[in-house]
Amino acid sequence: MPRTSFKFQNQPKILGSGSVGGKLEKEGPLGTYFDITAEDTKFNATSWEKAESEMARIATEFALHSASLGESDIDAIFAGDLMNQCTASSFGLKTMKVPYFGLYGACSTFALSLGLGGMAVNSGFCEKTICTASSHFCSAERQYRFPIEYGNQRTPTSQTTVTGCGAVILGQSGENKPVVSEFMPGFIQDLKIDDVNNMGAAMAPAAFDTIHRYFLLSEKRPDDFSLILTGDLGGEGKEILLDLCDAASLPLGENYNDCGLMIYDQNKQDVHAGGSGCGCSASVFCGYIMKLFEENEHFDVLLIGTGALLSPTTALQKESIPGIAHLVRITK
Amino acid sequence: MPRTSFKFQNQPKILGSGSVGGKLEKEGPLGTYFDITAEDTKFNATSWEKAESEMARIATEFALHSASLGESDIDAIFAGDLMNQCTASSFGLKTMKVPYFGLYGACSTFALSLGLGGMAVNSGFCEKTICTASSHFCSAERQYRFPIEYGNQRTPTSQTTVTGCGAVILGQSGENKPVVSEFMPGFIQDLKIDDVNNMGAAMAPAAFDTIHRYFLLSEKRPDDFSLILTGDLGGEGKEILLDLCDAASLPLGENYNDCGLMIYDQNKQDVHAGGSGCGCSASVFCGYIMKLFEENEHFDVLLIGTGALLSPTTALQKESIPGIAHLVRITK
Repeated sequence: MPRTSFKFQNQPKILGSGSVGGKLEKEGPLGTYFDITAEDTKFNATSWEKAESEMARIATEFALHSASLGESDIDAIFAGDLMNQCTASSFGLKTMKVPYFGLYGACSTFALSLGLGGMAVNSGFCEKTICTASSHFCSAERQYRFPIEYGNQRTPTSQTTVTGCGAVILGQSGENKPVVSEFMPGFIQDLKIDDVNNMGAAMAPAAFDTIHRYFLLSEKRPDDFSLILTGDLGGEGKEILLDLCDAASLPLGENYNDCGLMIYDQNKQDVHAGGSGCGCSASVFCGYIMKLFEENEHFDVLLIGTGALLSPTTALQKESIPGIAHLVRITK
Repeated sequence: MPRTSFKFQNQPKILGSGSVGGKLEKEGPLGTYFDITAEDTKFNATSWEKAESEMARIATEFALHSASLGESDIDAIFAGDLMNQCTASSFGLKTMKVPYFGLYGACSTFALSLGLGGMAVNSGFCEKTICTASSHFCSAERQYRFPIEYGNQRTPTSQTTVTGCGAVILGQSGENKPVVSEFMPGFIQDLKIDDVNNMGAAMAPAAFDTIHRYFLLSEKRPDDFSLILTGDLGGEGKEILLDLCDAASLPLGENYNDCGLMIYDQNKQDVHAGGSGCGCSASVFCGYIMKLFEENEHFDVLLIGTGALLSPTTALQKESIPGIAHLVRITK
């Protein structure tokens, strides 16, 4: 039952990246690392949903530009988001004349896109792919919870959907670039958490399962890595993951952090348990982590995208919240 | 810009399949070909959404059974559906301890799952995968349109979402089995159709684009194939596709048909322009077409999954309806 990770022998390279953040993200500790930030949460569009599409378009264009490539160089797009029917990505990227693969992994979508995009490049089916994911606080809030104008009070364990997008270009060749070296896909885990204001608790068991399987089947130890990053467990989920790891004698160590806790200043910004959403790990990776890859000669990161596979309908129908976590290793 | 299809040199085999249909599908011309049909549209579940998950579970279990395999033999699931956040698949398959890849390609999802699942098997990352997609008339109707109880009048060009699911098992080895031999992924096409009651018109240009590119870049001609099948263009979309093909001097011929027109009897069943939904091409392929593969020594099929990438929100925000079409070739 425990399955090994997919090893990408041909080392798909990250040739370029683009990251977009909103106002709150710009004001956070990683604000200066994003390639593009906007004071206007609508990104000059006429709705928040269209703004999210605009972020997907901008991040992808920036990523192409940073790799000195055009859309005709790209063989496939792997993209997804949280909007119903994944329309943020499909509308944002619909003018590109490139084969389009729509993904849905909830907040784990960016890691999923890196994993499947990496597989496509590694196997030679694609020379270059775009991998991208996005989320927007306002479009998510009114789709999943309440109209923004309602001014809903949020519980301490609730998280703040990141207004952000990240896109990378993967390619078969490139000098001195980080490579996607491994992909350990996740199983769906359902530990019967049913509090829709506590996604961290729903996702932490999935993160643990994937991380635990990875280290069980790998010769690596947690302190072999420069960074181990979960996508958006937030404060609550991070504590649960650390407890689960302790109980399994798998100390994650000082190099472990969660993108949802890195993107905001918990003391100064009113974000409750931290950031969440597809755009959280996508923008932190493409903004901040890519800069660390540029600054360091050797750098080795495990990114564990975490997703809660619920919908408002499943919650109303009293279903619990299944989680999933996909791990990708990025090495330089 | 025109890109060749992915050739699956290692010929991923279809080792087994399972198809599920509802009452209307059972009463249609292909009714006897489905592996499992139910008079009860709730499949013993307490809601239509849970019924759709149940269909995904049943089709997958049947497919595993037909291939004499268990879930521990499977390396990955590629699955998707039309429900918000793709919960029909994720909830239906959540107890399986198998890496799970969520897809969203609207009604093209089954072809997308065959294409990406085929890529995973062909490249050796997976020995065996499950590829599945589903839809349910009642869950789709109340999510996309009106509550069933409202008794909405439908326009002549509107289609009937198929209550159905199809699942196949792809594997690296197997004797005398159909193989997924090629995958030509689709671009998003937006010709500014904005009538949400005419999905066929929105999807036909995407189907034409993919089919046209395929024959432009292949040495094959349409009459080289036993069958050319679009997923769910329905009566309106099929006529538009044939017009577009005629204008491009690409006659599809007598061997062309649309799953949405095959699954119901247009004269006897009140389905307007025909069937639609992820479950349409999935159940027709896994039910009827798989039986044709069993009965024929040589058989060569192009399945072009067609999807309309809209959401109720994008329609309300006056966006047009982008379409996409993924082509897979299945050969024996």
